[in-house]
Amino acid sequence: MSPDPRDPGYADRVRAEFDKQGFMAFLGAELASIAAGAVEIRLPVRPELSQQHGHAHAGAAWAIADSAAGFAAQSLMAAGDGVVTVELKINLLAPARGEALVARGAVVRAGRTLTICRADVFAVSDGTETAVATALGTFMRVPG
Amino acid sequence: MSPDPRDPGYADRVRAEFDKQGFMAFLGAELASIAAGAVEIRLPVRPELSQQHGHAHAGAAWAIADSAAGFAAQSLMAAGDGVVTVELKINLLAPARGEALVARGAVVRAGRTLTICRADVFAVSDGTETAVATALGTFMRVPG
Amino acid sequence: MSPDPRDPGYADRVRAEFDKQGFMAFLGAELASIAAGAVEIRLPVRPELSQQHGHAHAGAAWAIADSAAGFAAQSLMAAGDGVVTVELKINLLAPARGEALVARGAVVRAGRTLTICRADVFAVSDGTETAVATALGTFMRVPG
Amino acid sequence: MSPDPRDPGYADRVRAEFDKQGFMAFLGAELASIAAGAVEIRLPVRPELSQQHGHAHAGAAWAIADSAAGFAAQSLMAAGDGVVTVELKINLLAPARGEALVARGAVVRAGRTLTICRADVFAVSDGTETAVATALGTFMRVPG
Repeated sequence: MSPDPRDPGYADRVRAEFDKQGFMAFLGAELASIAAGAVEIRLPVRPELSQQHGHAHAGAAWAIADSAAGFAAQSLMAAGDGVVTVELKINLLAPARGEALVARGAVVRAGRTLTICRADVFAVSDGTETAVATALGTFMRVPG
Repeated sequence: MSPDPRDPGYADRVRAEFDKQGFMAFLGAELASIAAGAVEIRLPVRPELSQQHGHAHAGAAWAIADSAAGFAAQSLMAAGDGVVTVELKINLLAPARGEALVARGAVVRAGRTLTICRADVFAVSDGTETAVATALGTFMRVPG
Repeated sequence: MSPDPRDPGYADRVRAEFDKQGFMAFLGAELASIAAGAVEIRLPVRPELSQQHGHAHAGAAWAIADSAAGFAAQSLMAAGDGVVTVELKINLLAPARGEALVARGAVVRAGRTLTICRADVFAVSDGTETAVATALGTFMRVPG
Repeated sequence: MSPDPRDPGYADRVRAEFDKQGFMAFLGAELASIAAGAVEIRLPVRPELSQQHGHAHAGAAWAIADSAAGFAAQSLMAAGDGVVTVELKINLLAPARGEALVARGAVVRAGRTLTICRADVFAVSDGTETAVATALGTFMRVPG
């Protein structure tokens, strides 16, 4: 974990990038918190996000895990740098039941070109969190 | 690849399961073809599905890869069996530019409890397909 | 994490299983510690374990990560249960330089059939640990 | 798949790199064939390579999958370029029973910095091949 961001304005920058992601708005996801190397995204669960058993689709969990991890990576980069997902694997731990999903992305190792991140996803039900997925992936810096 | 389905009515069954996935309808995905052990899903790309660079978000690619692979697994199972995703890893190969994404899921090995599948995702632009992602994952049978 | 083992003799059982793994002995790996849901394996680095740049081959890191994670899974199972690896993904974080590798496996979620584990691998050099790899995978219980 | 190598001497170069991998020699692995973007490695199975059930340890399968995929990536690179594994996920399909394991690595997409590869591993028994594992991973070019 590298807690030392190169760009002191990283939070505003991540927020601006998040706002450009039409898909996050479409899902209804919100940027819940931003720290250097750690980003949290919250997604209220609606019927549209369901799979065949009525719980939130793993695709929704993957999408916010990817964004939380990717923005955690970007939070440690220089001001002009962009980030793309190289690969991301998710393990599903439990059915995603509850009123919201929360994904917490964190940098495992920030390299010059590649940053490795993990993200944990929780379902929130009546204020209680249950771990529903965990993801591990690779993100590439796109020099600005 | 096991081309021998236990349930001759597998195509209708997969279609019925697909129709229960609110998330697929929400994305606008369609079941394009169903064979024993191989399922294709097509997703017209709209601005709502974009990431910050304007291409389709990897979350959309992951979601249809997951569904194509999972339904390919289910197509080989007995009539009452359900399927859940255990884990799925996706590697992104190129920006998803084009008017539609197509995911082709295929069974690599069908076991009694677990089925391993891959899925390839293509962006379709003016009738030309470009590989944009490839996924490999594990699905579990939920006995009916 | 489930810290409650079903078999109070889990440590002896894991040790006996480890001793049956010819590959661990061949590599020179040792079982360094066993707790319920957490196992540590240590591998002294020798020239035979190298890749083309002279560091320990990622295959050695993967093997001890797999064993540490798999035995962590098994430590929470009933006395007669065996375990097999379903899949394991490893991200390499840094060159594995040092006199030993240490893999720490931990259970993320123990289910009835499947257990999800992670494992972190460190290179030890003059008593200092550097994270060199992190792994995430799925293990299946084989009822005894 | 990019079948057009930048270095016409790629086969000799891959062979020289393979010979530097102490770990491959230690396992007893041999470079069975080299084409542009596709490498095959063969590993005779011995008791030392076993896991607790007597079959070849998944670590041996992972190691030759990693080398077959990584050298497939390197075969398409320029003469001075090296390659490192970023991450590799393996799904185990069946017990590795037989007199040898064969890993076939192939380039899925060769990029400027990153190359995505897959590798399939087979157990050979009396001349018959059984698929025992499939792997998908990311490799990074290290400019020469």
